[in-house]
Amino acid sequence: MSKADAKAQKRAKFEAVFPVLRDELLAHFAAEGMPEDAKKWYTKNLDYNVPGGKLNRGLSVVDTVEILKGRTLTEDEYFKAALLGWCVELLQAFFLVSDDMMDQSVTRRGQPCYYRLDSVNYIAINDSFMLEMAIYHLIKTHFRSESYYVNLLELFHEITYKTEMGQLIDLITAPEDHVDLSKFSLEKHKLIVIYKTAFYSFYLPVALAMYMCGIQHGPAPSSDPYELARSILIPLGEYFQVQDDFLDFAGTPEQIGKIGTDIIDNKCSWCVNTALAQATPAQRAVLDANYGRKDAAAEARIKALYEEIGVRKLYEEYEEAAYKRIMGLIETIPAQPTAKQGEVVLQRAVFKSFLDKIYKRQK
Amino acid sequence: MSKADAKAQKRAKFEAVFPVLRDELLAHFAAEGMPEDAKKWYTKNLDYNVPGGKLNRGLSVVDTVEILKGRTLTEDEYFKAALLGWCVELLQAFFLVSDDMMDQSVTRRGQPCYYRLDSVNYIAINDSFMLEMAIYHLIKTHFRSESYYVNLLELFHEITYKTEMGQLIDLITAPEDHVDLSKFSLEKHKLIVIYKTAFYSFYLPVALAMYMCGIQHGPAPSSDPYELARSILIPLGEYFQVQDDFLDFAGTPEQIGKIGTDIIDNKCSWCVNTALAQATPAQRAVLDANYGRKDAAAEARIKALYEEIGVRKLYEEYEEAAYKRIMGLIETIPAQPTAKQGEVVLQRAVFKSFLDKIYKRQK
Ligand SMILES: [Mg+2]
Ligand SMILES: [Mg+2]
Ligand SMILES: [Mg+2]
Ligand SMILES: [Mg+2]
Ligand SMILES: [Mg+2]
Ligand SMILES: [Mg+2]
Repeated sequence: MSKADAKAQKRAKFEAVFPVLRDELLAHFAAEGMPEDAKKWYTKNLDYNVPGGKLNRGLSVVDTVEILKGRTLTEDEYFKAALLGWCVELLQAFFLVSDDMMDQSVTRRGQPCYYRLDSVNYIAINDSFMLEMAIYHLIKTHFRSESYYVNLLELFHEITYKTEMGQLIDLITAPEDHVDLSKFSLEKHKLIVIYKTAFYSFYLPVALAMYMCGIQHGPAPSSDPYELARSILIPLGEYFQVQDDFLDFAGTPEQIGKIGTDIIDNKCSWCVNTALAQATPAQRAVLDANYGRKDAAAEARIKALYEEIGVRKLYEEYEEAAYKRIMGLIETIPAQPTAKQGEVVLQRAVFKSFLDKIYKRQK
Repeated sequence: MSKADAKAQKRAKFEAVFPVLRDELLAHFAAEGMPEDAKKWYTKNLDYNVPGGKLNRGLSVVDTVEILKGRTLTEDEYFKAALLGWCVELLQAFFLVSDDMMDQSVTRRGQPCYYRLDSVNYIAINDSFMLEMAIYHLIKTHFRSESYYVNLLELFHEITYKTEMGQLIDLITAPEDHVDLSKFSLEKHKLIVIYKTAFYSFYLPVALAMYMCGIQHGPAPSSDPYELARSILIPLGEYFQVQDDFLDFAGTPEQIGKIGTDIIDNKCSWCVNTALAQATPAQRAVLDANYGRKDAAAEARIKALYEEIGVRKLYEEYEEAAYKRIMGLIETIPAQPTAKQGEVVLQRAVFKSFLDKIYKRQK
């Protein structure tokens, strides 16, 4: 089987779990006595918003459990790992449905944003809440008797709160209708990226997999495998988002599957922050006058300025440095970790698998 | 001290706990590295949305703990009970901020709705999320080592989810811009009221107090004190909301502190559902033609119809019957419950205290 086929098969197997979970949520909803029209509504909410993305976050829970256990999963193990993966996708759906409203976006995943559907509008707010609470219902149903049950709950709470903090700084730093580049900086960019994206996209799936495999917290932060995972995955998530920002500018629509709009949308992107850090006063004036305008000519001026400043070259340097730095972090983990019989311990392969997927990706 | 003075003193003591919790949340927020403008923003979110209501729900946690323990609380006990009370108020703030957006309301508690403040607008969505997550941060900080910690988390999850279900049926049954009285019925009204209001306003505060007092779940639903509490508090919450609906029609602005707008807003109120159940075809035509219109003359026609149908008299009958029925439920609890030394058990007084506050209230 080719690598692409294996990937498609993995994805299909993961996707097949979603209807099971959805039907479980709907059965519970009906058992609460909710009327038929409400059940139809909730079905649409789940079907429209949860599957249909790239599923990288959800799949990485399953991948990580497989790497940690070092063997094929039993049917029950697979189902539980996939369930946690779908909980990450539910969390993401909660964030995306509400983010699209906050940004007044038009499309998502090639379709109209959910809130823009006939008759949905503001009801999307409550619908996003229900996606969030579905997480806790599923975890309670399937993990209540596990010793790490409370860890799962606390992890979702903590990561949700952090992501909301990141969303807040993003919203007040880069409102679409008010450009103020003096609020931008590479440090601010880093903070937004870590809180808004890296925690839930990188640390959360791995930490869920670690709990599921029975990995225990260490007695002190310095000996805690979760702290170790975080110390690698947060830089990794940061690198991923810098790349995402760069591809929004430099990737072709064929590569990235959409047309980049970060410049027009006044996004606090790595590119503009890098340009700001390098700009002469004259270049800064061009940035102030043209960034975040709903105007193709202004956007073209920014793109020309990025080329002038050498953002491509700077990105290449960033990527090489990030790769080396993250690899160095990964190599602090022993190549052959010692584990007691049956004990699962953190391994380099977990992080290398992420890094390999990301390094020099074009889409 | 007069009864009114005692009540004011209770409220003041409870209110004094809020700044402590707010500062704890803000200190954590700052410790996460969040910038100063974001901290100011979060402060405003908390201060504008959390205190300032009637605080009945929050205070009832403290009251219930006092009744259950049958003695004055220690300083630490008081703080913990008040903290859980403020968590109920945080949950309510999360619901109200988002409900006001969904309803496109103009004022709340005599002020502009939060989302209508300068520069807030859609950011209110994320701000409401942060109010919700503040609950779990506070509970983790103060209750993590308690045996009932996980019960608190599950309770908040379950009640939040149920309230969101109630909000969904309300939103699709009674959208402000589309009147369809065929969707209304007294059964639908009951379902909406129980899910949207009764669980979080009545059952949640009492269940929190019960956990704090160490009351254990029974081995079966029939012997579970939480099921017993629920079986009384849900009808009590239903009665409370029917009363609220009635006062929206029949109360004077001096009594209820606002001008009732349920008729104009197409609310699925007890009054319209009672009228629908009694209406002749001709009266039904008047309801269809005038309910939910943004028009004072149409509203006056509905009010006249309510008088014609005798909604006041029907409410009096409802109230008497509800009082008797709930009192009957309360009296299934032994007047002198047997408890082991030091064990706290459910008592009639918990529920009587609620019922006394509600029965024949005029505001
Ligand atoms: Mg967006
Ligand atoms: Mg956004
Ligand atoms: Mg992007
Ligand atoms: Mg409302
Ligand atoms: Mg509403
Ligand atoms: Mg009302």
